[in-house]
Amino acid sequence: MGLPEKFISCDWGTSNFRLRLVQTDSLAVLSEHTTNMGIKKRYLAFQAQDNSSQEQFFTDYLVQQLGNLELKGEKNLVIIASGMLSSSIGMRELPYSPLPLDFQGNDLISKYINLDNSLDVILVSGAKTNADVMRGEETQAIGMSGHLPRKGKGLLILPGTHSKHLFFDGGKFNSFITFMTGELFEVIGQHSVLAASLEAVKWDACFKNVFLDGLQKGIDNKQMASFFSIRANTLLQNTPASENYYFLSGLLIGGELAYLKERDETVYLGATGITNSLYQMALEAVLPAERIKIFSANVLEKALLLGQRKVLATYAI
Amino acid sequence: MGLPEKFISCDWGTSNFRLRLVQTDSLAVLSEHTTNMGIKKRYLAFQAQDNSSQEQFFTDYLVQQLGNLELKGEKNLVIIASGMLSSSIGMRELPYSPLPLDFQGNDLISKYINLDNSLDVILVSGAKTNADVMRGEETQAIGMSGHLPRKGKGLLILPGTHSKHLFFDGGKFNSFITFMTGELFEVIGQHSVLAASLEAVKWDACFKNVFLDGLQKGIDNKQMASFFSIRANTLLQNTPASENYYFLSGLLIGGELAYLKERDETVYLGATGITNSLYQMALEAVLPAERIKIFSANVLEKALLLGQRKVLATYAI
Repeated sequence: MGLPEKFISCDWGTSNFRLRLVQTDSLAVLSEHTTNMGIKKRYLAFQAQDNSSQEQFFTDYLVQQLGNLELKGEKNLVIIASGMLSSSIGMRELPYSPLPLDFQGNDLISKYINLDNSLDVILVSGAKTNADVMRGEETQAIGMSGHLPRKGKGLLILPGTHSKHLFFDGGKFNSFITFMTGELFEVIGQHSVLAASLEAVKWDACFKNVFLDGLQKGIDNKQMASFFSIRANTLLQNTPASENYYFLSGLLIGGELAYLKERDETVYLGATGITNSLYQMALEAVLPAERIKIFSANVLEKALLLGQRKVLATYAI
Repeated sequence: MGLPEKFISCDWGTSNFRLRLVQTDSLAVLSEHTTNMGIKKRYLAFQAQDNSSQEQFFTDYLVQQLGNLELKGEKNLVIIASGMLSSSIGMRELPYSPLPLDFQGNDLISKYINLDNSLDVILVSGAKTNADVMRGEETQAIGMSGHLPRKGKGLLILPGTHSKHLFFDGGKFNSFITFMTGELFEVIGQHSVLAASLEAVKWDACFKNVFLDGLQKGIDNKQMASFFSIRANTLLQNTPASENYYFLSGLLIGGELAYLKERDETVYLGATGITNSLYQMALEAVLPAERIKIFSANVLEKALLLGQRKVLATYAI
């Protein structure tokens, strides 16, 4: 039957909801609609009512939001949803796909659901090892895999609230590790004694030295001994809170990347904006330049759609 | 003039306030009164009024609480206050005493204040290096120093919300490092995604293996890569939240002590109760038994009073 001309991409995360009408061939986004109705918020709303089943309650929201996309009379479009919609607090829980996962997406567990006459959904599951889990990043990673070497090994790093480090070899993702770097940054910055010593400001080149200073302490595994120095430097040296902010950022990213000192893979970085800049500086402090590859913004922007199209292709027999 | 027969010990921390009438020779506590009026709370109350100066506002509370001690008509008692009362949010800010600090307490900065005819206070300052600060622990450490070797070097560890590691050599504390271990445990446990996977339960020997497992990962500097495994283990293995609690505890304490692998000092541990048990297990995983010395509960209980008596002695010319 081949691939349909268009599909609808659904990216329903913990905190945000996004629908896109996508041209299958070009992956051009024809229409887009986002809300802040993350899975968590919708699940709380589900718990607060008793008229609908969990599946119906999530379906209702999907159908309702579809009305905000410019579909121009298109019918029978399939929605591909990766991320939290297949979790226990989503529409229908799917078991995690166990690693290894081949680059084509054939190993991903997904479920085709005909919800009613006009709504077909393909739910994509997360992935797991014996010790770690993810939901959403596996689809992105598979989307980016066309730009990864099919022979030999490497490491794909997707920074974020929960940074994912995916190890691949011979066209398969074989294992991964989650680092709570982004969440630790938020939690320490907002709820610890350091909160008064930190000020969130936009990146500027003048912060490079403090960032690299924190980074090196993280790489040297001096993280635990360095957190409180932020408070002490405020009291003793009047270090500006904006500088401390990037020192802490460096410290945590350094802690995340420290183990790379002892590895020999080439590292592929998949991040955008300031996150990309900070992780690139950080990787350059740990690895020789020839072992660092940076994904272009264009590939990253399309990564989820590419991955979702691969899943769609597994149904197009 | 010699030492007075009795003195009043004031221990005013961020969250609690404690007064004790102490027999100087024996350090026996003759009367005790505690409240939860920590410095922080009192400082907020000070900011919310405009009748009194900051010094007067703290003095008023001290005088008022003295009425709750059984002083039996004793007059002209001196109060020795270490901790936060000499901070910027206390009665009168004193500069930090720079290290090194000799075991006798002679290097501690303190200030004798005659507040009115019946109230004399000796404010004891905190201590600092170029990169770290403390308030209160320096007095405890000096109190414990009679049980530390006066010749040669060693390390005194005082675990807590902000664990202090004090390095000494030849009868002087020369440097220290603060580890935010206790605070990180609270902040991560209460405000991160791990909160749902953790349950605070009393220590039981059945938790020893998970504690040691977390500990080893901390010692091996695999902390950053291990936080999220707590969440993953909840999802994948149904690991009980009570076990995760001690795994996280081990992970953080392991991270605090990891650097000891590369040191050669004998370590003196000053902790009580379950904290003492956990740190003792942790130290035994890093160091040979002959390099670990544990302070008795009795010495620890008197540590602050011993330190305060040493400060008092510097005034008894």
